[in-house]
Order: sequence, then structure tokens, then C-alpha cells
Amino acid sequence: MQHVEMLIEALPYIKRFAGQTMVVKYGGAAMLDESLKAAVMQDIALLHYVGLQPIVVHGGGPEVSDAMARMGKTPQFVSGLRVTDSETMEIVEMVLAGKTNKGIVAHLNQQGATAVGLSGKDGNLIVAEQETSKGDIGYVGKVVQINPQLIHTLTRDGYVPVISSVGIGRSGESYNINADTAAAALAAALHATKLILMTDVEGLYRDFSDKSSLISTLTLDEARLMMSSRQIDRGMIPKIESCITALDGGVARTHIIDGREPHALLTEIFTDEGIGTMIYDPAREEINE
Amino acid sequence: MQHVEMLIEALPYIKRFAGQTMVVKYGGAAMLDESLKAAVMQDIALLHYVGLQPIVVHGGGPEVSDAMARMGKTPQFVSGLRVTDSETMEIVEMVLAGKTNKGIVAHLNQQGATAVGLSGKDGNLIVAEQETSKGDIGYVGKVVQINPQLIHTLTRDGYVPVISSVGIGRSGESYNINADTAAAALAAALHATKLILMTDVEGLYRDFSDKSSLISTLTLDEARLMMSSRQIDRGMIPKIESCITALDGGVARTHIIDGREPHALLTEIFTDEGIGTMIYDPAREEINE
Amino acid sequence: MQHVEMLIEALPYIKRFAGQTMVVKYGGAAMLDESLKAAVMQDIALLHYVGLQPIVVHGGGPEVSDAMARMGKTPQFVSGLRVTDSETMEIVEMVLAGKTNKGIVAHLNQQGATAVGLSGKDGNLIVAEQETSKGDIGYVGKVVQINPQLIHTLTRDGYVPVISSVGIGRSGESYNINADTAAAALAAALHATKLILMTDVEGLYRDFSDKSSLISTLTLDEARLMMSSRQIDRGMIPKIESCITALDGGVARTHIIDGREPHALLTEIFTDEGIGTMIYDPAREEINE
Amino acid sequence: MQHVEMLIEALPYIKRFAGQTMVVKYGGAAMLDESLKAAVMQDIALLHYVGLQPIVVHGGGPEVSDAMARMGKTPQFVSGLRVTDSETMEIVEMVLAGKTNKGIVAHLNQQGATAVGLSGKDGNLIVAEQETSKGDIGYVGKVVQINPQLIHTLTRDGYVPVISSVGIGRSGESYNINADTAAAALAAALHATKLILMTDVEGLYRDFSDKSSLISTLTLDEARLMMSSRQIDRGMIPKIESCITALDGGVARTHIIDGREPHALLTEIFTDEGIGTMIYDPAREEINE
Amino acid sequence: MQHVEMLIEALPYIKRFAGQTMVVKYGGAAMLDESLKAAVMQDIALLHYVGLQPIVVHGGGPEVSDAMARMGKTPQFVSGLRVTDSETMEIVEMVLAGKTNKGIVAHLNQQGATAVGLSGKDGNLIVAEQETSKGDIGYVGKVVQINPQLIHTLTRDGYVPVISSVGIGRSGESYNINADTAAAALAAALHATKLILMTDVEGLYRDFSDKSSLISTLTLDEARLMMSSRQIDRGMIPKIESCITALDGGVARTHIIDGREPHALLTEIFTDEGIGTMIYDPAREEINE
Amino acid sequence: MQHVEMLIEALPYIKRFAGQTMVVKYGGAAMLDESLKAAVMQDIALLHYVGLQPIVVHGGGPEVSDAMARMGKTPQFVSGLRVTDSETMEIVEMVLAGKTNKGIVAHLNQQGATAVGLSGKDGNLIVAEQETSKGDIGYVGKVVQINPQLIHTLTRDGYVPVISSVGIGRSGESYNINADTAAAALAAALHATKLILMTDVEGLYRDFSDKSSLISTLTLDEARLMMSSRQIDRGMIPKIESCITALDGGVARTHIIDGREPHALLTEIFTDEGIGTMIYDPAREEINE
Repeated sequence: MQHVEMLIEALPYIKRFAGQTMVVKYGGAAMLDESLKAAVMQDIALLHYVGLQPIVVHGGGPEVSDAMARMGKTPQFVSGLRVTDSETMEIVEMVLAGKTNKGIVAHLNQQGATAVGLSGKDGNLIVAEQETSKGDIGYVGKVVQINPQLIHTLTRDGYVPVISSVGIGRSGESYNINADTAAAALAAALHATKLILMTDVEGLYRDFSDKSSLISTLTLDEARLMMSSRQIDRGMIPKIESCITALDGGVARTHIIDGREPHALLTEIFTDEGIGTMIYDPAREEINE
Repeated sequence: MQHVEMLIEALPYIKRFAGQTMVVKYGGAAMLDESLKAAVMQDIALLHYVGLQPIVVHGGGPEVSDAMARMGKTPQFVSGLRVTDSETMEIVEMVLAGKTNKGIVAHLNQQGATAVGLSGKDGNLIVAEQETSKGDIGYVGKVVQINPQLIHTLTRDGYVPVISSVGIGRSGESYNINADTAAAALAAALHATKLILMTDVEGLYRDFSDKSSLISTLTLDEARLMMSSRQIDRGMIPKIESCITALDGGVARTHIIDGREPHALLTEIFTDEGIGTMIYDPAREEINE
Repeated sequence: MQHVEMLIEALPYIKRFAGQTMVVKYGGAAMLDESLKAAVMQDIALLHYVGLQPIVVHGGGPEVSDAMARMGKTPQFVSGLRVTDSETMEIVEMVLAGKTNKGIVAHLNQQGATAVGLSGKDGNLIVAEQETSKGDIGYVGKVVQINPQLIHTLTRDGYVPVISSVGIGRSGESYNINADTAAAALAAALHATKLILMTDVEGLYRDFSDKSSLISTLTLDEARLMMSSRQIDRGMIPKIESCITALDGGVARTHIIDGREPHALLTEIFTDEGIGTMIYDPAREEINE
Repeated sequence: MQHVEMLIEALPYIKRFAGQTMVVKYGGAAMLDESLKAAVMQDIALLHYVGLQPIVVHGGGPEVSDAMARMGKTPQFVSGLRVTDSETMEIVEMVLAGKTNKGIVAHLNQQGATAVGLSGKDGNLIVAEQETSKGDIGYVGKVVQINPQLIHTLTRDGYVPVISSVGIGRSGESYNINADTAAAALAAALHATKLILMTDVEGLYRDFSDKSSLISTLTLDEARLMMSSRQIDRGMIPKIESCITALDGGVARTHIIDGREPHALLTEIFTDEGIGTMIYDPAREEINE
Repeated sequence: MQHVEMLIEALPYIKRFAGQTMVVKYGGAAMLDESLKAAVMQDIALLHYVGLQPIVVHGGGPEVSDAMARMGKTPQFVSGLRVTDSETMEIVEMVLAGKTNKGIVAHLNQQGATAVGLSGKDGNLIVAEQETSKGDIGYVGKVVQINPQLIHTLTRDGYVPVISSVGIGRSGESYNINADTAAAALAAALHATKLILMTDVEGLYRDFSDKSSLISTLTLDEARLMMSSRQIDRGMIPKIESCITALDGGVARTHIIDGREPHALLTEIFTDEGIGTMIYDPAREEINE
Repeated sequence: MQHVEMLIEALPYIKRFAGQTMVVKYGGAAMLDESLKAAVMQDIALLHYVGLQPIVVHGGGPEVSDAMARMGKTPQFVSGLRVTDSETMEIVEMVLAGKTNKGIVAHLNQQGATAVGLSGKDGNLIVAEQETSKGDIGYVGKVVQINPQLIHTLTRDGYVPVISSVGIGRSGESYNINADTAAAALAAALHATKLILMTDVEGLYRDFSDKSSLISTLTLDEARLMMSSRQIDRGMIPKIESCITALDGGVARTHIIDGREPHALLTEIFTDEGIGTMIYDPAREEINE
């Protein structure tokens, strides 16, 4: 009986988000630990079944490095970006689109939420060009256009899209895209209600050396201020940038959550307190209510 | 966190019944007690939001007797059936279609599941003729035809139908129909997965004087046998008959549950044990699996 | 042969109004006299069959007072509005939604125009709040919002909606709404071509003590002027107000017709002279032609 | 007022035939006399507007002979069939498809029923081959296949199809088809409710020399018997044959009516007595009721 | 093998024009010579099958004059326009709608592209009024309105429309319309990508007495200038005017091609050089790219 | 001009196959040689644009062996089947789904035919179980079910599906499936008109040591006979088996073509002679014609 009362408590959240699109960047520990992985897959299947529209975006850094090692290549990084020569790009694409992506698809199918795995090449979903701000580091790309029609084709017929963060260039070449960035661009193009980034930290800290300074909610203006004042831990910079991009693109709320917590996703969506750090635009919030 | 784990436990049931029609006969204590009523309304709204298709059928005996008393009429019964002269029929219809029905509709709307109240007259939904097996007891009717198109019209656009058990005769006259019977006929016509009858007892007892003999599951054949051996408490007879009618009409499973238990409906649908007594046809069960 | 020539005479009107929505406030003598009632039902069925879209709105004052009397309650009125305590509201709703409404539905079904009876609670059709302009007279409401989706759901599948003038409050409570007012609000929300109010008078008189002063057509400006100059019989005030509301809301033409004349409805729609008083906005008229 | 009561009398027929297809062979005096022509056009427009689906099929014998005369050709007939050399066929097609057909279309458009004129070539509607039973009389054809898709395309969007009785051969050549025959084949292919043949006689006579022996209704078996007993006036033979073909093809009722009577079409459809001679299959009649 | 390589060369053009509407004015030598006619029919069938949407518009001057001669009438012309009394109009319509049009339809059907022949009367497609700029020359009309819905109805279901240039007046009377003009008006109303006029000249000459001065492309401004400077051969004036009308109405490109060349149509559409003279608006061209 | 005449020659084939599904197994030399690859991609894009529905299925043996070598693993084969331990399966899947598949997708996108790359896991497209007929050789699978819904979802919206021959087991595990076998199963499930297997031989030889004995057409019965008489080169056995499976499953014709010939695909489809060996069922052929 306690069981069903819990369901009743979730009812207001189910109603509130019915039919809405949630872009989830899946990554970090939740991708490596089998038990966390299973919990995420259940969460996504549940979102699907109670009438929300989850879209999964993933990278797969550790698996790429592992495959490179097996092929005798040593990964190199410049400013946190993987130097990606054409051989490396081929390995990145094989691992992301051929292994990680299809693994997630198989897992979701097992949970009863029929999934379709895509890369940014499929349906010209993520058009990219070379990222040159850090010099020439090869096939590292930035998003220049999202063609979201394929996602609508699939979700209209009840499939859960799972997207690996590989972009397609104007000549058909592949680009390695940061998965947070890809998720943000997709969230904006799909007019998603939420962008949720799964990380391996609790959230954003006001002072990143002080674990007690976790920020629960942050306005878009405050986030911009923190970015310019360089108060942010380097690893968090692309995540905050992705949140800002998504908010600027019309997404209502963005979340940085701790993927090390089982069912962090459902906790964020189906409880009032949520979890991690929410960055939002108070101006738009008023309009929505 | 405990909260969301409970949601995950419900996932298999949500998947299993997604898109399926459940006809719920709402009545008894669950209709009179405000807190039980609120729990039922939440249950139905939840079924709606997690993708099932609930159809509510109700009677309203106590409210009818009450209104008759206020109008100076004394209810009379023959073999458990209300003797229904034309003045009584008018009161029955006013109470069921004008008070009870619209009360349920308002409650469901408050829970966010937009409801539409109907009687068997609307869209010629329940065509009836006089029940003459107990002699002439007036406008007591039996179902001769269900025209389910109106229900499909409403559910296709996301409404929850709430149906009062009044039938329409060939000349437009009204008939007082037993709500269990009406629910069974609707469940068959709608090819429902389940018919669930809310009662004020725990379920069916093998020996109705022995509360420890509650039957958890019963096959259609066993139910027929019990009916013929007159082992059944008189008040349960129309309920068992309704279950048999529904099973014969193609409904997969029928349930007699205890409406005095809060959230009995969700407990029946979203737990393995279920609650109350299930009557089913093992022959069809095998086909389904 | 004469018979079919009459049909041919109706052809221009049938063409002109094909597919258009006509909101008909049904009430007064035409609701009480069985032969007038039968004629109105035929008229509505014919409108339906020749391709117009009739929407019926009704009140039911005399039946409410009668039921109150049977329950030992004495109706009270303030400025023509029924003082409506919660017990009275329950009686109003039972009578309108449970008796009058379902009676009209059964009659239309007999005429072959399959009808669905609704109150303003169904599908949150008529959202209301307390009318306080005359002090606190209980559950007397004014319309705050029309949610017309349910009407479109039903008419798209060929049903004739019949609506009792009960509104639903923000907390699910019931409100007694003037049927002319409800009809006007529905006509505006449904972008109806005509609002037709059936009354027990010939129409509007320029001087209400002089029966020879019947007004055939009146512009919106003239109607406003008459309202401000207090030339109008008190009983007509809510009707004129309803017409003005509908015209302001975009309805093309409004009509006050004499329900005591058999087939007044068809006469208004299918003859050049029409019947009763038409109030219209000449500015919009020019645009339409 | 009398006016609208007449409309009410038509209501049962309007209901009965709502949405049903009526194939009308238009010809004879009704095509030549301007006032009869105007009446037929009104009738068809009315059928369209009150929700039936009229399909007009026409020939045009007198106009063809007239055009031939103007071009210096003398019509020749064998067993009532026009000997049709290729030059004659060209004239037949020009007159039927270019003059008669477009004249009917313009007339119907004027009545507000937007028409589309077709010959059997359009959309390969009427596939024909040479009629050889009377020897080689040129491009006289018999129907070998009806492709009704084009008719469905047009009626779905509200157009009234007007079809001239020209068939298309396997090599694209034209064939002159008897219009009664073409109408019967179309009625069967379109699963029409009625086939109505407009003629210049009152109907079928039991003894064609005795005008008082007009037959009101005739069963399919009786019609077959009369055909074999050679009791029928030669001009009526192709009409009776067309009726039998249509009945064998599933049409419910067939009618031979007197096109010299104004509004004979409406009289047949909208009165109980009908007009002219009805040939029907009593076996099927029972099934329908 | 050479065969299929040719197909590959057409691929870019097929892609570029996929789904686009091409209005083709068919006339001149290509209509009279059987082998050219066959080639045009193949071209149109191919356009249809590779996913373009051809719309054929035709006149039929020589056939009209021929029929008039056979009926003993002598054609008269004023400023290149046929003086069209009512008898002449009847002949024009019979020839265009009854002979030429149905001949094209039969030809296209043979090629596997199912065609439907229309005149401007069908579906009120081309509404016209008397052309009075050259005085009263009878039933010569100018286009006042295009009602393109019928074309959409037919193309949505895969038919190729073939339209004879006859217009319908406000009273249903027929008008003889220049086929180039009709094609231009249809191209604008259908938002066609191209208007292609088949003529019996190579194209437009800068100096019409010098065959070496053929113009390959011409801007809208240049065309207007040439028109005002009277440099254009009289027979070309209505063609240039039609191109200007179409361009002003939003058509992207207009072409005057030489119908005496077999497969001129495909050559224009499926090669870079094209053929004949293209008149286009460079301003719009930039927007399109 | 010659150019467009070639297009006209293809018209009969374009008509014949319009809207039909062609499953193409892409493999062998045509996958390794860049210029052959480009020609195949053009062919598929052309099929798409002229209205056929190509479905591409691919394996990728040489690329798999190459990747294994780079990862220090030595491929092992039993009866022509790759022994597939779990590490090998991971490499197979990465290469097929992550490299080969996305490479084909990018190529087709460049040709303007928007493609979507899938493995048998996506949408549970190819359900498989372990192939045990050759003993336990690991994750080598056989098809147990095709769920073709995802393919219909994609083709309805104009995408070209590209499928790598990986199957999904009941527990979500991956299986390595022979690409010919997968193509045959898909062709049957999709009711394809043709299954076309691209190979590195000219076709099937009656005597495989005699290159002059190439078989142009073979009936299903003859194919079965050749299989049982062991006349067939070992490498051809799975191809013939796939053809037989597809024919038994309802595919009309199957083809073994020489992928070393540029544009072999178009040559097979768009010429009368075709190329390679066709295996078909004469019994069904007659039904089709």
C-alpha cells in the first residue's frame, strides 16, 4: 500500500511535464558503473512510459581512450580537448557510435523503451565544422546547425532517440563534438523543457574548494557573472557554457546533476527539491507561470 | 530518494498496461467517504497520466434514496431491484446524471484528468429495454446494445469518460440499470483489459460466513459452479454475474476489490499480489501469454 | 410535387449557412409545451442534417422551481437572479444536468440527430466565478473562460452538443449561470455565425407598451443606445446584453425569436424575412459580403 | 411558415440517404428544355447540400446528331446503336465532353454545387472495348472496367462529378458508350444506393400499349421474366438491362423516372410514393432492413 | 552501361526540382506532329515519375479553325485575337475541351501518367470576364481569378492535370482565353517553380530579323525594356507578357522553348545549358540561393 | 539531346518499380574501391529520387579483420563463419555500426539522399539467437524475428535506411549475422520486390570452373536442385540460400550481381537484360502478371 501512495506523490510532476521534451546528457560514472547504468536506464524508460519525451545524448571519453590504447595510440589533449587526427577520429566514431551508443540502445530495449541509436551523421542531425579557437587540433568540431526532423520522425512513433556526439561536416567528414555542447544545441533546436547534464560532481560550488558552498539555483545572469569572474572549476566551464547556450536558445531550465547518485534523474524531475544545481532565466520563468 | 525507487517498482506494471482500457465500476463506501473519494480520484488521474485508459461507471443508490426521501417518496425493492415508477425514474436520473456524475467529473478535473460525464442516453451509449424477469417493476432496464463510438471519440482526444448507469429505450425513455451490469457490458464492448468492481467487501469468500475463506483467484468455470451451487452471498450475485458476462464478452480479467481500502485501485493494478478476488478465464490467459 | 418545390426554395439558405455554427438558447414556452418542443427538436435535427452545426444551450427555471417546491424549498430572487445556496445549487444542477438536459438529448436522438448532453463542468467547458455585482447571492456565477475543445471533439464526429448552463469554479464548485449569458459566451468562443435566443415574446419593441412597435432589425449601436436610455423591458435586458456580448465577441448576427411560434428556428434561418428581432453590427456585415 | 413545415417533411428522407451515393443518368427532354434543365440542376445541387452524393452521367444524342448535320454527316443506326466511324467518334466526343458536359458543369457551378466534368478517359475512369454483338459498327464500345478512384478523389473534397459516356480503349482510342450502361457500371463500381435513369416516359408499362398499366415497383426476377418474354418496348430494353446490371452489381434500388416532370429527381428521393418505376431485389431489401 | 551513366548525369536536376510544380504551355508544332507529340508525352510522364509535378495547359488554334471550316464558318481576327461570337465560342470549347484535351489525356494515360482533363469551368478553375481592350470581339476573355483547389485535389492523389484554356464567366458563360496567359495565371496561383512556354521559334531574338541574335537569358527588367522599346516580334509579345505576369506573381523562372525540337522540355529541365530563352528576376534568384 | 533520350529509355523501368522496395546487400569490392563506392552511392540516391525505396544492408568483413589485427587479435573461421568471442563481437559491432555504417550514411547524405544508419539493435529490428549448427563459435547469430516498424517509420518520412548486420539477443546481447542472410530476412519482412546481393563474381555458374557457363536466370526449383547436387561453389552457398529464403518469404525476384561493375545496380534495375543471375519463382511470376 505504501508503494502506491508513492506513485500518488509523483502525480503532480507527471502532470506538469506530460508530453514535454527532456534532453539528458548521459556520461561520467553513471556510464561506467553497471548498477548506476541500470538505474539510469530504468529512469529513462519510466520517463518514456509516464508520458515525457526523453532524448539521450552521450559521449564516451574513457572508452575512447581505452580503445586507442588497445590500438597503440596515446591520447593527447589541448585545453581539455582531445587532439583528433583522422585515425583518432575513426576510433572515436567506432567507439561512440558502434559500442557505447548501441550498448545504451540494447539496455533501453531491455527496459521496454524501444530505442534508436543515432550519430550526428544520421539524417544530417548535427552539422559541424572545425573548432579552430584552440589552433588546429584536427577533427574537433563545433555545431553549426541542428536538423531535428529525424528526432521528430522517431518520437512521433514512440521511439527513444539515443545520440552520440559525432558531427557531420559539409563534405561528409566526421567531427568529435563535446557531448555537453551537442546536448545543449539539441535541447535548443527541439524546444526542450529541460536540459539535464549528468556529471561526477554534486553540482556547482560557489567556491569550488569548499564542498559546503553547493549552489542549488542560479540565474542566467549570475551564471554569466561567475563565468566572467573565473570563479568556476575548469571542468565545469563547458557545462556552464552549455547551460547558457541552451537557455539562450529557449530551453526553460537547465540542470547539472550528480550521476553518482542512483536515480538522480528521477529525483531531479519528480521531487520539489530536485538535486544538483539548476540554472534558469527568471525573466522567462515569469512568462511560463 | 526512496520516493523515486517506488516509481521504479511500478514501471513493469505501467509498461504492461500501457494504452489498455480499464473499466472501473465506482461505488459503495468509496463514493460516500470524502477521503476515500479523493484517493479514488487520484488513482484514476494517475492511471490516465501513466498511459492507461480508465473508464468510470457509477451508480448511486444511497443518494437516490436520500433524494426520494426529501421528495416524500419511500423506496421499494423487489429481489434487490428498486421498483421504479416514472416519478422515481426521474429522481434516479436527476441524482445519477445531475449530481453524482457531475461531482465525479469536477473531482477528476481538479486532479488534472479532464473528464466528461455521460449517461447511457448520450450518443445512445446504453440502449436498454424493460427488465421483466422479476415481474413489472417499472423502469428497471437491461442492456440490449452498447454503442461505444462516443467513448472512442472522447478518449482519442484525451478525455476520461464518466458514465452514469442510465439506459435509453427505443422510444427515448429512461431505464435504471444496475451499475455493475452496465460496467460489464461497456467493458465487453470496449474490449477492455480489465473490469474492476469496487465493493464494500474484501472480495469473494468461499464460505461467506467465514471471513478467512477469501478467494484470491477464481477461474470462470469455478465461478459458474459457485453460482449454480448457490454458495454465494446474495449481494455478490450481480457482481459475479457481471464478471462472467464481461469474461464471456472477451475481457481478459475481472476483479472484485474492496473500495474501503484507500488506493485499492492502484494496488490492484500496480502490484503483483493485487487485492480482492480476480475471476479470469485460464483458457484465454494462455493465449494472451 | 409542391413538397419538393419547397425544398428548392430553401436551397439558397442551406448553401449560405453550410458548415456554419449556430448557437441556440432553448428555453421558455418552447421547452414546456410538448408540441412546441417536438417542433424545436425537428428543427435542430434538420439543421444538423442539411449541414449546419447547431449547438443547444438551455436553462430550466420553471423545472428548478418545481423541484425545489417538491423538496420543500421556496425560491428567492434578487434583481431577477435566483438566490442560490448550496442546497439550491445542488437542486439546480440535478434538474438542469440530470433531467432537462438528458430529456433534450433523448428527444434529439429520437429525431436521428445523435446528441451528447454536457454541463459546463464537462471538459471544464464553462469556467465561472461568483457573480458579486448584486451582493452575495450564493452560487450564482459569471463566465470567466470557455474551453471549447470538447465541443470541437464532439462536432467533428457528428454529435449535436446540448449544454446546460452550469459553470465550474476554480475549486470544482458549481455555479448557476444565466443561460442567455452562457449561450453568448459559447457563441463567441466557437466563432458562431448566429446566436439565436428563444423567448416568449415576439421580439424587441421600440416601446414595450406598444405591441405594434416590434423592431425587425437593430444595429449594435442602436442596441447600446436603447440599453443606456432604459427603454427596454426588464426581462429583455439580459437578452440584449447577451446579444451585445456575442457581437463584440465576433458573432455575425444575433436573434431574439418567439419560441411560441412552431418552427420559429427554421423560419428565422430559412426565410428572407426571418422572424423576431435581429441585432447586428453593420460594420462587420459589409466585411462579410 | 408553411414553407418550413415542408422542410420538416423531407427530414426522414434526408436522414435515410445521408452520405449515400446516387448515380443519376441525365438525359432526354430534361436536357433539352431550359426550364426542366434548370430544375434538374437545382435538384442535384440540393442533393449535394443536404448531404447525399450525386454523380451525374450523361449522353447527348440529339446534340451529336445536330453537330453531325452541321458538319455534313448523316447519322446511321443499327439496332438503335449509332454507327460510329472515326470521324463520327471525334464529333461525339467533342459534343459530349466539350459541349454538353461543360454546359452541365457551368450550370451546377451557378447553383453553388462545384462540379468537375469528366469523360471516361480522365483517370482511365471507363475502360472499354469494341461492342461486336451487332457486327462492326465502329467505335461503339462496351464497358470492360471501371476505375473509380478519381471519383473518390473528387467527392472527398466536395466536388460533384459529371461524366460523359465516352470510354477509353486499351490503346487510348475513344468509344461511344450508351449512357444508361455507363451509369449502371459506375453505380455498381461506386456501391451506389440508387441508380436513377431519367427518361421521356412515365415509367415501365405492363402492357406498353396501355398507358394505364404503369408499373410502380418490380422485382429483379419479374424484370428478368419480362425481358425474356419480350413484353418490353424496344426503347426500354437498354434501360431495364442497365437496371439489372446495377442490381446484380450490388446497387440497392434502381429507378426509371419521367424527366419531363419538373423536379422528378427530388420527388423520387424525397417522397414515399416516389415516381416512375422502381426495380429492386427483394432478397437484398430484407438484408438492408 | 552507357545508358545508366546518363541517368546518373540527370540526378542533380532530379534532386533540385523534386516535388516542384512546372506549368507547361503545350502548343504549336509539338501539338500537330505525331512524333513530336509522342516525345512531349514521354517527357511529361517522366517528369511525373521522377517526382516533379507537371501541369499541362493547352490551346488549340489550328484545330479550332479546322472545325470552324468544317461547319462553314470563316475565322476572323482582330489584333491577333479570334473574334468569337457565341457559335464560335461553342466550337472553340468543343474542340479544346472535347477533342484536344481528351486526346492529350489519352496519350498521357498510355505513357502511364494518369491524367485528368479540365477546362477552366471545372471547379471554377479559371474565372474570366470579357476582354474589352480591343473593342467588343465577343467571348474573348481575360483571367480575373484562379481557384487552384481542384488542382491540389488532383495532384495530391497523383493525377496529372491537363487544362484547356477556356474560362468561366460570372453567369456561367464560356470565354476563349489565350493559352499562354492562362498558363501564366495558373503558374502564379500554384506558386510554380517554372513556367515553360512551348513555341515554334528557337526563343527570343535580340533583333528578330537576325537568327544569330538568340537570347539565352534575360532579366525581368531587360524584358520590360524590350517590351517598351517595341523590339519584339508581334507574335512573341503575348509570350513575353505571360512571362512577366508569372514572374511578378512569384514564379521563379520562365522559359520560351522551341517545341520543334524533340524532348525540348527535358532538355530545358535536365541540362545546365537548357534551351531557348529564360526570363528571370535576378533579385529573387539571390534569395533562392 | 542524347542525354535526355537516355532518360526516356529508363521511363518504363521507373514506372514499373515506382514505390517498390528494393533490399540491396552492399559488400565486396564495391565497398573497398572508392570509385565503385561512389558509383553505388549515386545509384542508391537515384533509386530514391526516381521513386523507388532502396534499403541498404551491409556487412564489412575486411574492415573487421583489419581492426582486429590492429588490436592484436587473429581472426579464426569455422566453415566460413568467424569465431566470435565477446571481445571479437565488440570489435565487429564497433566496425560495422560505428565505421562502415556511418561512412555509408555520410556518402549517401552527400548524394542528397538523406540516410539513417541502424544496426539490428535499433528498434529491436533484427532479433537473433546463437547459431549452433557449427558448434559453439560464440556470438554468431541467426535471425529469429524481424521487427520492421522502424523501417516504415523512416521511409514514410523519406529517409534511406542503412542497416549493419548485427542482431540483438533476448537479453540485449549482440550477434554477428551474415549480411546476405540479414538482407534476405529483411526483404521478406518488408515485402520487397527485389533482393539484390552485390558480390565479387559475375553471377552463378552452371559449372563453377567454366566462366562461360554463367546462368542468367534460374527458377527456385532449379536453385534448390543445384544446392542439393552440390554443384555450387562454396562461397556462393550462403548467397543462394539467402535468395531461396527471400523467395520463400514472398520476395518477387532475387539477384546476384557483380559489384565490380560500376553502376551494376542501375544496370540490373533499369535494363531489360539486367546483369548477373536472377533466381525467381515462375509460379509467382505468373500471378504477378
